[in-house]
Amino acid sequence: MENYDKYTADDFEKLINKIISDNSKIDSIYKLSELYDGSIKKEHILLLEKNLKNLLETYKNGSIGIAQINPVAGDIEYNAKKVVKYILHAQNIGLDIVIFPELILMGYPIEDTIDRHPVIVEENVKWLKQIAKITTSTTALVGFVEPRKYDHLTGKKYYNSVAVISEGKIQSVVRKSLLPTYSEFNDYRYIEPSPVAGCQPASTLGDFDDEKIQNCPKTAVIKGKKYGISICEDCWNNKEFFNDTILYSKDPIDELSKENPDIFINCSASPTRAKKEQLKHNMLSFISKKYATPMVYVNQVGAIDNSSFDGSSRVFDKNGNLFARAQSFKEQFLIVNPDKGLGKIYPLTKGLEKTLTEQKIYTLEYEPDLERTYKTIIQGIRDYFNKTGFKRAVLGLSGGLDSTVCAVLLADAIGAENVFGISMPSKITSSASKNDAAQLAENLKINFTEAGIKEMVEVTNNCLQNLFSSVEKHWDCRYKQSFTMDNIQARSRAMFLWGISNEFEGCLPIATSDKSELYMGYATINGDMSGGFAPIADVPKTKLFALARWLNENREIKNAIPEAVILKKPGAELAINPKTGKPLIAEDALMPYEFLDEIIWRIENKKEHYSDMVNSEFLYEKKHTVPRETKLEWLDKFYRRMSTALYKWSILPPSVIVDSRSINKYDYKQPITSSRINYKGLEEKEIEEKILALL
Amino acid sequence: MENYDKYTADDFEKLINKIISDNSKIDSIYKLSELYDGSIKKEHILLLEKNLKNLLETYKNGSIGIAQINPVAGDIEYNAKKVVKYILHAQNIGLDIVIFPELILMGYPIEDTIDRHPVIVEENVKWLKQIAKITTSTTALVGFVEPRKYDHLTGKKYYNSVAVISEGKIQSVVRKSLLPTYSEFNDYRYIEPSPVAGCQPASTLGDFDDEKIQNCPKTAVIKGKKYGISICEDCWNNKEFFNDTILYSKDPIDELSKENPDIFINCSASPTRAKKEQLKHNMLSFISKKYATPMVYVNQVGAIDNSSFDGSSRVFDKNGNLFARAQSFKEQFLIVNPDKGLGKIYPLTKGLEKTLTEQKIYTLEYEPDLERTYKTIIQGIRDYFNKTGFKRAVLGLSGGLDSTVCAVLLADAIGAENVFGISMPSKITSSASKNDAAQLAENLKINFTEAGIKEMVEVTNNCLQNLFSSVEKHWDCRYKQSFTMDNIQARSRAMFLWGISNEFEGCLPIATSDKSELYMGYATINGDMSGGFAPIADVPKTKLFALARWLNENREIKNAIPEAVILKKPGAELAINPKTGKPLIAEDALMPYEFLDEIIWRIENKKEHYSDMVNSEFLYEKKHTVPRETKLEWLDKFYRRMSTALYKWSILPPSVIVDSRSINKYDYKQPITSSRINYKGLEEKEIEEKILALL
Repeated sequence: MENYDKYTADDFEKLINKIISDNSKIDSIYKLSELYDGSIKKEHILLLEKNLKNLLETYKNGSIGIAQINPVAGDIEYNAKKVVKYILHAQNIGLDIVIFPELILMGYPIEDTIDRHPVIVEENVKWLKQIAKITTSTTALVGFVEPRKYDHLTGKKYYNSVAVISEGKIQSVVRKSLLPTYSEFNDYRYIEPSPVAGCQPASTLGDFDDEKIQNCPKTAVIKGKKYGISICEDCWNNKEFFNDTILYSKDPIDELSKENPDIFINCSASPTRAKKEQLKHNMLSFISKKYATPMVYVNQVGAIDNSSFDGSSRVFDKNGNLFARAQSFKEQFLIVNPDKGLGKIYPLTKGLEKTLTEQKIYTLEYEPDLERTYKTIIQGIRDYFNKTGFKRAVLGLSGGLDSTVCAVLLADAIGAENVFGISMPSKITSSASKNDAAQLAENLKINFTEAGIKEMVEVTNNCLQNLFSSVEKHWDCRYKQSFTMDNIQARSRAMFLWGISNEFEGCLPIATSDKSELYMGYATINGDMSGGFAPIADVPKTKLFALARWLNENREIKNAIPEAVILKKPGAELAINPKTGKPLIAEDALMPYEFLDEIIWRIENKKEHYSDMVNSEFLYEKKHTVPRETKLEWLDKFYRRMSTALYKWSILPPSVIVDSRSINKYDYKQPITSSRINYKGLEEKEIEEKILALL
Repeated sequence: MENYDKYTADDFEKLINKIISDNSKIDSIYKLSELYDGSIKKEHILLLEKNLKNLLETYKNGSIGIAQINPVAGDIEYNAKKVVKYILHAQNIGLDIVIFPELILMGYPIEDTIDRHPVIVEENVKWLKQIAKITTSTTALVGFVEPRKYDHLTGKKYYNSVAVISEGKIQSVVRKSLLPTYSEFNDYRYIEPSPVAGCQPASTLGDFDDEKIQNCPKTAVIKGKKYGISICEDCWNNKEFFNDTILYSKDPIDELSKENPDIFINCSASPTRAKKEQLKHNMLSFISKKYATPMVYVNQVGAIDNSSFDGSSRVFDKNGNLFARAQSFKEQFLIVNPDKGLGKIYPLTKGLEKTLTEQKIYTLEYEPDLERTYKTIIQGIRDYFNKTGFKRAVLGLSGGLDSTVCAVLLADAIGAENVFGISMPSKITSSASKNDAAQLAENLKINFTEAGIKEMVEVTNNCLQNLFSSVEKHWDCRYKQSFTMDNIQARSRAMFLWGISNEFEGCLPIATSDKSELYMGYATINGDMSGGFAPIADVPKTKLFALARWLNENREIKNAIPEAVILKKPGAELAINPKTGKPLIAEDALMPYEFLDEIIWRIENKKEHYSDMVNSEFLYEKKHTVPRETKLEWLDKFYRRMSTALYKWSILPPSVIVDSRSINKYDYKQPITSSRINYKGLEEKEIEEKILALL
């Protein structure tokens, strides 16, 4: 956030005048508007708004303010005050409408909280009513959780609603019809679908169902223009666009189109996922073109737990052309006028732009997605810390890729001064690893110290050997394998990190496990997979390599990551490989990461199964000769290890969802006790024989 | 499971003859049937079935076999073979129908697994088709996940279906209409609601939607009787019974009733929850009476992850009277004939019976629920171990209530010989605690050893003090409080337990945290709240005391729990209270458990909020004088601590859901970043003032 509150009144006026005289009218509007998104003294706001109002004079009729803001789930006072701020701004510069993301008073998602603690629903209605009182001729669209009547109710207890407020009161209420329950979405758990699209009278607030549908216009007429208002998923069900494969039988946009609205408005809270940007762009463009109606789409920005929302609110004209788009991953107040072509296209995250016009959803190419991946995670970390009140992070720096990338992301998310990297060498740790860790810390300017775990591991090992001997007297099932001792190292390190977290105010330890290793259960419980937050849990190893290179090229300070970290083969340095006498390489224990990551990608994106993969050529196979028995061995190992990794997924700390699919437990659910699934399947004939054998 | 396979053919025949000659005909049927649920040689089965067939001759027409079985989620071959076993049995004794719980081929719940791994859906259809081939004149109702057509689809990809199979083929398909998405249920995430109740022709299998509804009878006519078949939630929406407050607008039972069926059948997978038994009993009784039609209800038994299903399948006659009920928490094949009054009522878990006719859902009385609580958890532990392939458990025995009750439950669930209790004294641990732990282990006959953590804690503390000094040079925010060191003890113990788990085959460490303490975040991450399974995470402390007494009175070996454990005040023995010089008592750090547990109960069951509780008298207040400021202090502390405990709930190991509501993450979802919720709420006036201050 830019800081303008150091400016004197004089300085600030000079800045405004300079902007106005240096630029075209449209440019000036956006430059001035950006000032408002910075930190600014109250007394300067009036001056700013007066000038903006003058500039907007000619566009006035039909001008809309898109308030792309970052709410805190359940902190209604905080969210409501932000809403008030932007309503006042819109009033002062004379806009017709100001619009906010879905459920803005509550924050999205709020999940079962509203059901267990109904007081917060009452609270958001009280705030809504009081906010309505301060509205003037500028209309505001404010999302809130609407309680339905409590007694004698058919269906869920709440609607996901938008209030249309102006002239001191609630004018009408729009309710969400289509309620997603896939991936990270759970709307239908607690929300009742609206039986009708568009506006219903304010009198229905708090007591509405299909018997109370009023035969009123579904569009809202505001200063002579008709607006077709919908909420998030309501615009994601166009039968034609989705090639006849849709989730719901209704299409609220189509219903609204019957009244020939001048403009569509959609209030959303849509998290960013790999490849979704392309789909969203094409779909919104398709709808505006199909109905020859401009589409104004406002999206939530910021992260709530595992979901990171990118903002990128946007407007398409009636021909389906994009003519305005707000910044990605930033709060912004974007002024547009769909009728008069007032708009500015802020850039999407780099690379992603290229994908917009292509339909290739199924690709393993990481390049176009790296900046988005970076910003998604940065925002995820920053908002998790901000919203839970944590300020500092501590992590182990092993000199390996995972902890290195985590350190960079943390430094960028919460500030290098708030990050502490601890090198915790064991007797296996090479001096090269220690040097890489120290070098990284120096490059990043994060805090750094070394604390050896040798002594602690020794004592723990001794204690455990005695204990194992005692247990062995009763239980004849001892492995005597090295991984028990390997895990002691990882757990000792976590003990240090959690100790620091407990001892220093507002400090969270970081879990550094990556997605490839989590799929394989190749992560230590209470060790490297333990922490307050897991930044890269949804990034597979091969993408991490690409991200490391990208970070070295694209951050302000280049090459923070030592080249050696990127070049070395990943390995946990927990054990010595008896064959080579060197630390065990992860790929020895697992399989080549390129192959592993392609299995994951095929399962998540293409829903392939074992025999699909046996019978098709992997990209890895185009480059390397893989004997059939090796391929089968890897596939078998994958499914076997994945089946027993389900428990680890269930206790994984909060993490940012990045990919199209993930193993994040709020996104993907599989019973741990389903570990006996036969992923290979059987032929009809085999089944028949098995049954006949029972007769 | 009783073991009859040691019997010779002769012995077995004698056993059968004795049963038949000693009992009435009905009694003999049930006694013989119970033999079948034991372990029995294949060659004896024929003999048994021949005798049963003779006995059933007079009841034949309209006789139904209720196969109450325990499936493994996703292990289709295992489930299908069980289905075949019971179909053959039903055929051999000449029943008209044999019925199975909901989704029996797949196991319920299966969650998103079917979406990510569609191969298992193909697999369950293949098995269904092959099973149909072996059917004869006995009809079987077999639940399965039915794929809908894959292209050009509106809605979700699957139905939750029951196939009606006989004479070598699928006769018709019944699909679930009402899809719960509350609590532990997620049906609507991946299942499409059926647009119609009852039967549709087999030809619709795999390609059905509302345009393909056939105008055929919805009831299935089997040997001259009309059966109205529904699936689980489909029977939970009677408007009259639920006093006009229902979740869905349709009522499949009412739709089916239009054809005047002779008998209703409902195939369910309904987990046991506190107070649900009473509701279910009354509801099923109400429906059968209202429609003057007997209701045959078959329920899944066994646990899948966090959900424990109690079985207790049952039959009500057309007057709403219960006349048959299968065992609770056991697999059973129960033969009934609703027309001819053939049935047997196996007892419900003790105490619960009393609650059946009472409508008092809101009570804090634990007594009637203790046996159910015990059996729910025992089954939860046993099935988690069995279904994931674990065999042994290791836990720390502190001499406190939590670990003590866990040890008893584990011994009963997986066998004392498979449980290892480790006493891990620190310098604070009293000798009384050590003795209590040793005594308990002896009483339970579990394995036991002692392993002190003093040395390890000392070394860790030393290392950490050095590390803290280094960190302190960069960060000026050190607490220097004792809880950091307290946590080291808990984490050292977990290090031992996880070490044993790693070193010994099939061994899981146990997390001993209870519900009251989890609500307060009074549990150590990577310490006592860490483990492969958390048996008592849904049992509040005051109920644990009651359960301990109940265990002492009701287990075969009485008084296994030393009286001292029940009498002492709970405390983690991690720190010394500076005021008393004795180990800190938990209630000093928190509040009286009686008060704490009542807050939890009021929130979960009555959805009360802060001001409701301020303004009503607690049961605790009836017994103790509580100054108003103390009450407010406790309430404030509760909400403050709960807000910061959300993260801990998210990483809690799998645990059995026991209460009506829980904090189990698969049952209750709240964003961790919603920790800033104002649970007290504001008055309209306060809100107005806050808004005016912004103008």
